[in-house]
Amino acid sequence: MRTLAEHTLGELAALVGGSVEGDPTLLITGVASLEDAQPGEITFVAEPKYLLTLKTAKASAVILDRVMPADRPAIRVDQPYRAFATVLTSFYPSPRPPASIGTPVALGERVHLGHEVVLLPFVTLGDDVTIGDRVVLYPGVFVGPGSSIGDDSVLYANVTIYERVAIGRQVIIHAGAVIGADGFGYVPGPDGQHLKIPQVGGVRIEDDVEIGANTCIDRATLGATLIRRGTKIDNLVHIAHNVEVGEDNLLLAQVGISGSCHLGTHVTLAGQVGMVDHVHIGDHATVIAQAGIVKDVEPRAIMAGSVAMPHRIWRRVQAATPRLPELLRTVAALERRIAALEANQTHAMNETEHG
Amino acid sequence: MRTLAEHTLGELAALVGGSVEGDPTLLITGVASLEDAQPGEITFVAEPKYLLTLKTAKASAVILDRVMPADRPAIRVDQPYRAFATVLTSFYPSPRPPASIGTPVALGERVHLGHEVVLLPFVTLGDDVTIGDRVVLYPGVFVGPGSSIGDDSVLYANVTIYERVAIGRQVIIHAGAVIGADGFGYVPGPDGQHLKIPQVGGVRIEDDVEIGANTCIDRATLGATLIRRGTKIDNLVHIAHNVEVGEDNLLLAQVGISGSCHLGTHVTLAGQVGMVDHVHIGDHATVIAQAGIVKDVEPRAIMAGSVAMPHRIWRRVQAATPRLPELLRTVAALERRIAALEANQTHAMNETEHG
Amino acid sequence: MRTLAEHTLGELAALVGGSVEGDPTLLITGVASLEDAQPGEITFVAEPKYLLTLKTAKASAVILDRVMPADRPAIRVDQPYRAFATVLTSFYPSPRPPASIGTPVALGERVHLGHEVVLLPFVTLGDDVTIGDRVVLYPGVFVGPGSSIGDDSVLYANVTIYERVAIGRQVIIHAGAVIGADGFGYVPGPDGQHLKIPQVGGVRIEDDVEIGANTCIDRATLGATLIRRGTKIDNLVHIAHNVEVGEDNLLLAQVGISGSCHLGTHVTLAGQVGMVDHVHIGDHATVIAQAGIVKDVEPRAIMAGSVAMPHRIWRRVQAATPRLPELLRTVAALERRIAALEANQTHAMNETEHG
Repeated sequence: MRTLAEHTLGELAALVGGSVEGDPTLLITGVASLEDAQPGEITFVAEPKYLLTLKTAKASAVILDRVMPADRPAIRVDQPYRAFATVLTSFYPSPRPPASIGTPVALGERVHLGHEVVLLPFVTLGDDVTIGDRVVLYPGVFVGPGSSIGDDSVLYANVTIYERVAIGRQVIIHAGAVIGADGFGYVPGPDGQHLKIPQVGGVRIEDDVEIGANTCIDRATLGATLIRRGTKIDNLVHIAHNVEVGEDNLLLAQVGISGSCHLGTHVTLAGQVGMVDHVHIGDHATVIAQAGIVKDVEPRAIMAGSVAMPHRIWRRVQAATPRLPELLRTVAALERRIAALEANQTHAMNETEHG
Repeated sequence: MRTLAEHTLGELAALVGGSVEGDPTLLITGVASLEDAQPGEITFVAEPKYLLTLKTAKASAVILDRVMPADRPAIRVDQPYRAFATVLTSFYPSPRPPASIGTPVALGERVHLGHEVVLLPFVTLGDDVTIGDRVVLYPGVFVGPGSSIGDDSVLYANVTIYERVAIGRQVIIHAGAVIGADGFGYVPGPDGQHLKIPQVGGVRIEDDVEIGANTCIDRATLGATLIRRGTKIDNLVHIAHNVEVGEDNLLLAQVGISGSCHLGTHVTLAGQVGMVDHVHIGDHATVIAQAGIVKDVEPRAIMAGSVAMPHRIWRRVQAATPRLPELLRTVAALERRIAALEANQTHAMNETEHG
Repeated sequence: MRTLAEHTLGELAALVGGSVEGDPTLLITGVASLEDAQPGEITFVAEPKYLLTLKTAKASAVILDRVMPADRPAIRVDQPYRAFATVLTSFYPSPRPPASIGTPVALGERVHLGHEVVLLPFVTLGDDVTIGDRVVLYPGVFVGPGSSIGDDSVLYANVTIYERVAIGRQVIIHAGAVIGADGFGYVPGPDGQHLKIPQVGGVRIEDDVEIGANTCIDRATLGATLIRRGTKIDNLVHIAHNVEVGEDNLLLAQVGISGSCHLGTHVTLAGQVGMVDHVHIGDHATVIAQAGIVKDVEPRAIMAGSVAMPHRIWRRVQAATPRLPELLRTVAALERRIAALEANQTHAMNETEHG
């Protein structure tokens, strides 16, 4: 992708709150990784181990922390990786289609559209839908009756929002995600059939949430499934009815969270983690990939394994597990040696007694 | 959500086949959980442990079993949770759009539409499609050539039905689900490439099945993939080609079932369970979350773990697993003590012999 | 499905490079499995164990290898299963809609359409999109600005292709798949918030790749996520940013691959396998279902387990695991017997000393 902008080294330094080392009028035409950067572009080094790669990089400038040695013009900051993200944004502003209402779209009754909204073709808005300012809805998006989307949110193609879902501001929802499908709730019928429990609650997504492609967040039976401010959710995640996810969580790909779970703030669930229903995870807890959570997790705990245990124990269990077959053989051998000892001792004692 | 109806306590009791305790003319304006119920609303207690919460509930009436003490007007039934589901349905009838053909929709040749069908905008029906009475198809639904949808079924937004898929009556398919994509079948080619085996079979979904959001059910290579009556499937489930799922199963979120598996009736697979191909699961069997099924499962068995084992063994293995590192150390120490015993015994016997 | 063609046994033999046993003018009206085949149809036996079933099959002809005994007219080939796939293709040619541009579709500026393209209704193509010859795009497909689709590729309903994605020739993408959504990349902000790292790279899908329903392949942060020629991907797979998947891989359902992983050629990942980020898998390696890969895998290795270990060790660990609780008890008993031995020995030695 060709960048859409040029900046001087000094302008970029001001943008990230850093200091310039070298010529501040140096023109920077793009940003790239150490390996890919071309002359004219800026790159970054987040960890000292990459300084060796820097030596052979073609980049004309580099973002560094306050202490790493620079072999070319540099911007010095406290956190090079964060500064890199900011510089990226300045070179690649998010590609926003111009405000317009596509043809055809299908709008229900009493729909309220904010300023500078983008509705691409084949969007459907049900009755009583509210769309905030500068919202972008890509083709195939469906928003059910009574739902609302806050200012500056973007819903990519083929996203489905069921009825009575409230979505905050600056929310990003990737293609194919489904928000507000019925929770999975049944009660046994007289003949062993599963009778559906109507799922009449809603979903509330707060500001600054990002939701990955084909992720599913179910509506509550009663009340609301809730995703709090700033939480980021990866692709193909399942969040069941009546779950509450706290602020600033990271939920990685293919995580599955059962009904009525409650996650605190700054929780991280790594890929393919599963949780049984009605479990509470404390603030700042981390769960390692593929773990299975079956009971409450303490704040700041690190859990791993299926069924999950504290990470420091799990690490030792992991190291010990491949030795289990050998251990069985060792114990069988010990058993024989003990039997021999016992036989000999009995024999010796008999000897002593009768000697 | 505001409810759409009001009922007297007596009407609700008649609806659920229960008996009234208190004034049968009491007007009930809604239904809610113990915590959320407001004056005028009815709540329910399914288990005695929630009776304490009932004391402080604001609800004007409660659904109870035949023996729990009532502190306010009540409906007594054998199964309070089932009665609650029924009452919910009476207050929140499923929101069905009025019968209509949206604009635009795309209809193939020889399409047959039943009575009072709802086709929302941007629906596509291929040639020779049959749609039953009162079917609702949300925006973005695609139904491929030769497929049929039975009476009273609802397909939510952006559901894809490939060609020659037969869907029964009162089936609910949530947004983004895909029924009838090609099974994953290849045969090694001369140069190690994977040659596609045409997937020319179909899919048959019987009556009263519910299918979760973004779930995928593949078509058969030959014959049909089959989901029998009354089975309920959660979000993001994968069902491969030529699988047969029996009646009244519960398949929870992110379950994966490989090709040609066969599940009996009333099977429950908990979240993220996986099955290798060609495995049979007996009637009324249950598989615990994240388990991996690699061979046939007996009727009524409860299985757990990856690789799966009987649940009663798995529970003990789970309890023992964190002790494995300690066990290794214990056995090493025992080995040293036995070596010492052996040395001493040899020494003692030498003593005795030469004593 | 009724087949669309009839062939003589001799024609079919020529098609698969086999030799006829019996009447080459025998008319074959279809192809089916051993159990389902009807008179007039041809079936196949890939392994000797199915010869018993052949005896009762109604098929009028059979595909066999060079040595298995034939009880009816036969085609003899080296690889019966591959020949079966070819014969299937001849009876069921892929159902391709006639070339046409549906109504309505939404086309951006500078869109280039090849010859005999099929655009079904409700397709959206962004600006600067290039569509190759004979491409088929089903309803609800969205192709973002600057993306391209190679000749003879098919994208089923509701597939989403983001901007700047390059898709090769003869690629099949099943319904609901999402190619090019943002990678999951954040950097910690000053208040513990997660700041989005713009994902400005692309995705490149080479020729002859097949991608399953609702699978997600994210765009790169910088550079490109890459799926090489001939790789087949099942349903609900997650492939993160900057991953490179080699040629002729098989990635089964619900696999999850984290950022910057690199897979060699002919790698097989079975269902629900997960990989942490920045891991390399060597050529021809195989990973068993539900395994978790946390470090590099050697070429031709077979790995299993979460955390993964070599399959030959894992098999023994699996056999030993259910015996762990018993082992704990055995070791406790041994400990008591050793203590008794030690006490007796001390006693005996005291006896000897003081005897």
